[in-house]
Amino acid sequence: MKGLVYGGAGVRAWREIPDAAIQDPRDAIIRVDTVTICGTDLHILGGDVPEVEAGRVLGHEAVGTVVEVGGGVNGLAIGDRVLASCISACGICRFCRESSYGQCRGGGGWILGHLVDGVQSEYARIPFADQSTYRLPDQVSDESAVLLADILPTSYEVGVLNGRVRPGDTVVVVGAGPIGLAAVVTARLFSPAHIVVIDKAQSRLDSAKMFGADILVQTGTDDPRTVVEALTGGLGADVVIEAVGTPQTFELCTELVRPGGRVANIGVHGKPATLHLESLWIRNVTITTGLVDTYTTPKLLDMLVAGQLDLGHMVTHRFGMADFEQAYDVFADPAGTGALKVVVSR
Amino acid sequence: MKGLVYGGAGVRAWREIPDAAIQDPRDAIIRVDTVTICGTDLHILGGDVPEVEAGRVLGHEAVGTVVEVGGGVNGLAIGDRVLASCISACGICRFCRESSYGQCRGGGGWILGHLVDGVQSEYARIPFADQSTYRLPDQVSDESAVLLADILPTSYEVGVLNGRVRPGDTVVVVGAGPIGLAAVVTARLFSPAHIVVIDKAQSRLDSAKMFGADILVQTGTDDPRTVVEALTGGLGADVVIEAVGTPQTFELCTELVRPGGRVANIGVHGKPATLHLESLWIRNVTITTGLVDTYTTPKLLDMLVAGQLDLGHMVTHRFGMADFEQAYDVFADPAGTGALKVVVSR
Repeated sequence: MKGLVYGGAGVRAWREIPDAAIQDPRDAIIRVDTVTICGTDLHILGGDVPEVEAGRVLGHEAVGTVVEVGGGVNGLAIGDRVLASCISACGICRFCRESSYGQCRGGGGWILGHLVDGVQSEYARIPFADQSTYRLPDQVSDESAVLLADILPTSYEVGVLNGRVRPGDTVVVVGAGPIGLAAVVTARLFSPAHIVVIDKAQSRLDSAKMFGADILVQTGTDDPRTVVEALTGGLGADVVIEAVGTPQTFELCTELVRPGGRVANIGVHGKPATLHLESLWIRNVTITTGLVDTYTTPKLLDMLVAGQLDLGHMVTHRFGMADFEQAYDVFADPAGTGALKVVVSR
Repeated sequence: MKGLVYGGAGVRAWREIPDAAIQDPRDAIIRVDTVTICGTDLHILGGDVPEVEAGRVLGHEAVGTVVEVGGGVNGLAIGDRVLASCISACGICRFCRESSYGQCRGGGGWILGHLVDGVQSEYARIPFADQSTYRLPDQVSDESAVLLADILPTSYEVGVLNGRVRPGDTVVVVGAGPIGLAAVVTARLFSPAHIVVIDKAQSRLDSAKMFGADILVQTGTDDPRTVVEALTGGLGADVVIEAVGTPQTFELCTELVRPGGRVANIGVHGKPATLHLESLWIRNVTITTGLVDTYTTPKLLDMLVAGQLDLGHMVTHRFGMADFEQAYDVFADPAGTGALKVVVSR
């Protein structure tokens, strides 16, 4: 079979690899039907995630069909169409028992395309298959479902729920990539008064508007501080969601938040930021960080079925598996290609 | 009358000042019976709180007797014995309506001994007297009650409640001054498994033990990281409470917390800290800051009456008002004097 193999910083290739095989009774093997590429995969290729070894198959977001199950798998059968989530869960450790699957201490967590081979391949091994997959209702398309492998639950849990968005809130989302846009989609579920989106690219702000943001701020042209101040009578935003992952954008979030407000960090960071405690200590601010746990995935699937999540414009480019490397080229150049999510299918 | 007057950085004097007088219908005048000094007063004298003007009477923690009320005061009568809280509240602004009295936008918040004359004086004006005082039950002594003007609600709300201490938790308190000790007292209400207290002074660690800490770590002698790691099987503490206010102690807190844990900052900070997002982004950590709101003060008074709060060893030194300057000298030198809280009475 073939897979997209990481070959050390900057190197990737769609090439022949050994067939996926059961290694543990709790494994399942899926035929990968639809798979996507994450900003985190680009971070890996940039050398920012040093624990990923050369030779690793990348990818942690897929929809597939079960073709083999280990003897310890109880909830899946051959032929089942499943979502393979970015988070694997042993289901047994103390963190899994509290639904903190992202922090699994039993061998799960974010392992696919990170610590074990991922799902950007024709077939893939899914560890802890009972706890790490979700059977898909017929009404949900592969292309919608694959967005629930990572970006939707990440933005919802780590951004919107950690940030405790409430009706009438002014919500600021810093960064309008797929994660920021998914934060807009899921923040809307709580009926905020305003969703302000900040990005440097006009094309991404246009997307943000389409997904439901009502105030768009282009950095370099407008000052986000002035916009948020005017909008909130000088108070600041109730919730600020960081969806970029740089010290500058994080520090901007802490400047935009109101006294008593929440900063929810989603961004993957490679460097420390400065925390201005000399002004924040007195302001009752809550800052949260988080890797997704995926405890909301079943409910998000229900919402997809019920038509509550409009993800129609999130996938901008589609490829066959033979063109996997081209899919990476397009995804890695959003300014040039306008790419949001790119989907690769059989 | 006399009061303790701030004369610019490093300068203070107990001297003659104009009599306290009603300035607004919602004011009351109290005869100050018992008053204490806060670490924040030392910060002011150190020049760290630049908005305090020379000539300001200091102090924001007192017990007194009402001697005069303005025409707009409805809940107090002359002769009432009251706690004058560090937080004044207009009761009307959006923050007061949400019990966020510390963030009052209607002229209250932390104003006493900060933006208006405080309570380290023979008599004091209490703005928004209905919302800013608490009538005291007979069973509660002045000396116990005055600890509820600031340190008890601060440590409880900003440390223990923001940090969401739960039964069985491992709680670390960094800093064993009065605020850290009050965090120990109020953390115990939630039955944690362990309370680890970290300080450099052996005398303060002895106090922490008396108040209920079970594991004491003297910095310079022991490494807090090693102790917490051994105690939690390498996981880290559920809750870490910062009660010092330096970049180093704050950064230590973020190293000691477990994945999914909480860092609750109480410390008054004068400088920014480094936030190591490159390791924290993936760890589901919640960081909170806060000025006390005092919404728990009535319940803390109930607990005092019920005998649930043992504050017996918190007051270490007692002075008459004529010796106010000596009280400052003793409080400012805890290493030399062993002072925790010093109380000044008529």
